[in-house]
Amino acid sequence: MVAVAILAAGRGTRMKSHLPKVLHSLGSKSLVERVLESLSVISPTRCFVIVGYGSAQVRSQLQSYPNVEFVEQTKQLGTGHAVQQLLPHLEGYTGDLLVLNGDVPLLRSETLETLTATHRDRQNAATILTAQIPNPQGYGRVFCSAQNVFGEIVEDRDCTDAQKQNRRINAGIYCFNWPKLSQILPQLQANNDQEEYYLTDAVNYLDPVTVVDAPDPEEIFGVNSRQQLAQAYQILQARVKDEMMSAGVTLIDPDSVTIDDTVRMEPDTIVEPQTHLRGKTTIASGCRIGPGCSIENSQIAQNVTVLYSVISDSVVQAGSRIGPFAHLRGAAEIGQNCRVGNFVEIKKSQIGDRTNVDHLSYLGDATLGDRVNVGAGTITANYDGVNKHPTHIGSGSKTGANSVFVAPVTVGENVTVAAGSTISKDVPDNSLAIARSRQTSIPDWPAKNSG
Amino acid sequence: MVAVAILAAGRGTRMKSHLPKVLHSLGSKSLVERVLESLSVISPTRCFVIVGYGSAQVRSQLQSYPNVEFVEQTKQLGTGHAVQQLLPHLEGYTGDLLVLNGDVPLLRSETLETLTATHRDRQNAATILTAQIPNPQGYGRVFCSAQNVFGEIVEDRDCTDAQKQNRRINAGIYCFNWPKLSQILPQLQANNDQEEYYLTDAVNYLDPVTVVDAPDPEEIFGVNSRQQLAQAYQILQARVKDEMMSAGVTLIDPDSVTIDDTVRMEPDTIVEPQTHLRGKTTIASGCRIGPGCSIENSQIAQNVTVLYSVISDSVVQAGSRIGPFAHLRGAAEIGQNCRVGNFVEIKKSQIGDRTNVDHLSYLGDATLGDRVNVGAGTITANYDGVNKHPTHIGSGSKTGANSVFVAPVTVGENVTVAAGSTISKDVPDNSLAIARSRQTSIPDWPAKNSG
Amino acid sequence: MVAVAILAAGRGTRMKSHLPKVLHSLGSKSLVERVLESLSVISPTRCFVIVGYGSAQVRSQLQSYPNVEFVEQTKQLGTGHAVQQLLPHLEGYTGDLLVLNGDVPLLRSETLETLTATHRDRQNAATILTAQIPNPQGYGRVFCSAQNVFGEIVEDRDCTDAQKQNRRINAGIYCFNWPKLSQILPQLQANNDQEEYYLTDAVNYLDPVTVVDAPDPEEIFGVNSRQQLAQAYQILQARVKDEMMSAGVTLIDPDSVTIDDTVRMEPDTIVEPQTHLRGKTTIASGCRIGPGCSIENSQIAQNVTVLYSVISDSVVQAGSRIGPFAHLRGAAEIGQNCRVGNFVEIKKSQIGDRTNVDHLSYLGDATLGDRVNVGAGTITANYDGVNKHPTHIGSGSKTGANSVFVAPVTVGENVTVAAGSTISKDVPDNSLAIARSRQTSIPDWPAKNSG
Repeated sequence: MVAVAILAAGRGTRMKSHLPKVLHSLGSKSLVERVLESLSVISPTRCFVIVGYGSAQVRSQLQSYPNVEFVEQTKQLGTGHAVQQLLPHLEGYTGDLLVLNGDVPLLRSETLETLTATHRDRQNAATILTAQIPNPQGYGRVFCSAQNVFGEIVEDRDCTDAQKQNRRINAGIYCFNWPKLSQILPQLQANNDQEEYYLTDAVNYLDPVTVVDAPDPEEIFGVNSRQQLAQAYQILQARVKDEMMSAGVTLIDPDSVTIDDTVRMEPDTIVEPQTHLRGKTTIASGCRIGPGCSIENSQIAQNVTVLYSVISDSVVQAGSRIGPFAHLRGAAEIGQNCRVGNFVEIKKSQIGDRTNVDHLSYLGDATLGDRVNVGAGTITANYDGVNKHPTHIGSGSKTGANSVFVAPVTVGENVTVAAGSTISKDVPDNSLAIARSRQTSIPDWPAKNSG
Repeated sequence: MVAVAILAAGRGTRMKSHLPKVLHSLGSKSLVERVLESLSVISPTRCFVIVGYGSAQVRSQLQSYPNVEFVEQTKQLGTGHAVQQLLPHLEGYTGDLLVLNGDVPLLRSETLETLTATHRDRQNAATILTAQIPNPQGYGRVFCSAQNVFGEIVEDRDCTDAQKQNRRINAGIYCFNWPKLSQILPQLQANNDQEEYYLTDAVNYLDPVTVVDAPDPEEIFGVNSRQQLAQAYQILQARVKDEMMSAGVTLIDPDSVTIDDTVRMEPDTIVEPQTHLRGKTTIASGCRIGPGCSIENSQIAQNVTVLYSVISDSVVQAGSRIGPFAHLRGAAEIGQNCRVGNFVEIKKSQIGDRTNVDHLSYLGDATLGDRVNVGAGTITANYDGVNKHPTHIGSGSKTGANSVFVAPVTVGENVTVAAGSTISKDVPDNSLAIARSRQTSIPDWPAKNSG
Repeated sequence: MVAVAILAAGRGTRMKSHLPKVLHSLGSKSLVERVLESLSVISPTRCFVIVGYGSAQVRSQLQSYPNVEFVEQTKQLGTGHAVQQLLPHLEGYTGDLLVLNGDVPLLRSETLETLTATHRDRQNAATILTAQIPNPQGYGRVFCSAQNVFGEIVEDRDCTDAQKQNRRINAGIYCFNWPKLSQILPQLQANNDQEEYYLTDAVNYLDPVTVVDAPDPEEIFGVNSRQQLAQAYQILQARVKDEMMSAGVTLIDPDSVTIDDTVRMEPDTIVEPQTHLRGKTTIASGCRIGPGCSIENSQIAQNVTVLYSVISDSVVQAGSRIGPFAHLRGAAEIGQNCRVGNFVEIKKSQIGDRTNVDHLSYLGDATLGDRVNVGAGTITANYDGVNKHPTHIGSGSKTGANSVFVAPVTVGENVTVAAGSTISKDVPDNSLAIARSRQTSIPDWPAKNSG
């Protein structure tokens, strides 16, 4: 039985931000949300987020986590002081307490599971998460026995040359036996330069204590500045991309793309440079995405090509080709083997199979059948200044260049709409619709005057 | 006299792909094609590609290499087994055999020439390509005399600490005296954990054997995963970009661009970030290309500016300015000192000198003279649903905004086409063409109703 | 009192360029301009640029620096020879001379100040700028006492193993007491392989001489090739980005963006990947810029979103949303809470508050009021082939899809313009303007014939 406390009360002065540090985004989620999501495997009985600076913002941002209990730490007097705030909330609780930091967003669920399991198995009073890092200079070193029994923590400045060889550092992540910790917490002293109460001090009064190394030292990376936020993003991205490549996705130039960890891709799809895949996006096999694409919360079926385009909240069926320079948004649904081309925006519309919208068009609130050919410059005038209205164009129809459909309007099947026509009345099947002036030529016209 | 065998029978399980490993693309060519192209300098008398997994796909992909002979290795029982398949094909052959790997795509022709020349000059039975790499951990080490006479190969796990200091590893690339090798091949044993026949074992039965170090250890980089495919691409790109910069091209941010090794550029051209130059593209001096451009199989003359645009299979003459957001394709030819601008697509069209197509236009199957001004929103309606038709617009003409040309149609010289006109009949020189409705105003119109 | 000499006479053969090396651009400024700008803090009494190769080009490029005096070095016979050219110009001068290199563009003003101040304080005959670099292999080492008193310079090839441990190298930047240097200069010998006169030799005849380490070894990076030009750009960019992040700007993927050092940004703005901010651009807080944006010489107010767009010489007021695929240029001014959307180009126009220009439009030389809704495909025909003319559209008006405004034309307030209308006459307030043909349908039309 484990409860969790997430320390999230700090301002993060070095961020130079109006936003509390833990609310800064790392990909599609904030730092503290990433910590919360890492808890799924260990299923805590209770989950406390200790808030202070910007607590209203933090509470508001975490509304979608119904099981979170917020605890106020009105003054920020250190990690020990933060956990002291739990005393009234956990009275009589006999389980373990896992203490996490809201600004350490890269811990894997598996590592937390190892930490808590080790704590239980060894019936520890406390278990410390540590990491062995290549260059521990400046960090306090954790010393322990060959059996991982905790010895002491020595600050870098107090280390002998021999001690400095120890590359194991304290990650500030602990699992505690709560009954034992709660006895120690009231006795913590703030007799240090910062006048803060340190949770680390509690460890010295507990027994037995062992340590667990995070398998990957990057897991304990903490974010205190925008530079570290960028570094954390690089680490997260490297993880996601490595998984993608191991699963059979080709990333031509991995460093130039960003892929949210919420994206799913099938093997044998190729991601070209400078492509950004975000949110709940799925991409099937055989696709070529990019360069220069941004796809968010969208479903892309097999063998689709997308280049230099922006797609959000939309669906593209198999075999279609999108771009360059297309924008699909707001529940656009593109059928199979379509071409959606150059300078085309499609919003909240259904496009049938083998329909082409190749050039300079805007389709909004429209339904198009199969095998429609949408001429260059075709526009649905879907907005009357107050409401949006639908346009229907039947299968096999063809719209002329620079034609306008003043919605609501229905065009039948196999209709031909003449170029330059503004269509505001319904058009029956198999007909030609035309709304066009007669062409005249006036000779000897001076080159200048026109319009 | 040298024959070549390229080992290309493996599946490449870690690629997680339906495609045989050697067919994965590294830039504009597949891995095995890169190996084939590296042979140009040594001019082999015969060239065998040993195929197995996906052999039909490999044969099909390499159709354009008429001199390649395919040899089936139906079971993949190791490198020795692969070369054994040549025995019936090379009966009575008295020359040398160069053995290459289809998944080692970065070897330079010059290195192969050094390897084969050394083999001949020293009258070797076998010559081994080696490389000295910074971190040889995990690799077998190759030991040889100061005169490069081969001693032995020791697996990493069998190395003493002293032996581990040796950074020379086996690249798996060999030149053999075929008469000598062909006597040894039938005697190879598969008495190892993998139950495979290793070509390396043959070396131990041959004499004299010397080694040749690849001058650049990156040359022997092999591709077994998508991660390594990405790394190989980085190595290849670094090579190409270094050559470009040495030749006087400025790459503002080299890491962000990709340049195929088939691209040719003149000095004093500047490539801005996130630009992709591919295929048989040439770019003359004085150009500024990018940011955000993709140019493929196209010719760009001097002093051209291109930004945020996609160009394929097209020609741009000197002094023209393309973009932002233009798409030239399908044999578009842009004259000198033109402006092709924002949201303009040009397909299979000839544009004369000093002609401007600045905004929101689609020109397909069109011929424009010199000094034409194409108004914003001008569209050639070149497709009648079945066929494509041509549009001709004479020099000095000017098309109005949102005008449409219903092809086939010919507009003379110095013609003015009024804005909003749909032109479906030919227009004589020096005239004004107009097809437009009279403008009326209805007062006290409620803001909402319209279209 | 300090005079400055900038050595800028070399061709830079490895650049393979028609441009003298010092004129190559590093971001928004040339190499030599960067050196000139680094002088602001030390306020030199005189500033000499010693020119040779391409001297006319260099003189022309530096016209905007009125205090620069150009000195010709017609033959390039070394750094000593370059400074010898100053003898006639500095006759009787009793102050100090700071010698800089026109191809060492990353020196900070603060470092120059430390160098010249140290020189004055210690009453030196010469002071040498040095740097301690991680890998000094190949460089001559500078040896000095613990008090930084200069001892000797030993070339790499002449160093003992112990001497090779010294990582301090000569940056080629000096401050001299001019009366003392001017006595030595005529005696310099060119008895070396290159037959050049080296300024370094002068140091051996002067006393006292001390050294000053550049705090950051990257400051002394010199540019001799396009590769080094790219590296210098990376160093400069890293500096700028680090400052931005320290000031509270989030850079999602710092390596993929470029930010000129002339750009100013407020905290809590987010820069998405592949974004380029150049020239005198300012971006207020709360913005999200990118991916895929290029913004030059523009002012962006609070809470503006820009994606996949190009903006130059323009202003965007608070709360507006630009893109994807918009182009603002030539003094476009966008009001508050506007939407400027897909495939829209706005040139030299004023757009009022809450006005939307969402799709496929070109506005040039136009003035739009507040709350205007510009329909998709709306175009201002502002060019008659000779002159540009203005379009005015009053507040609360709404233009139909594919409407054209033939300038000069004025549309009143709360006007509705019907879709597909070409408006060439003024429209009074509160009216409907329409210029459209009646729609007819011709039944049983074969699908093929149309336009």
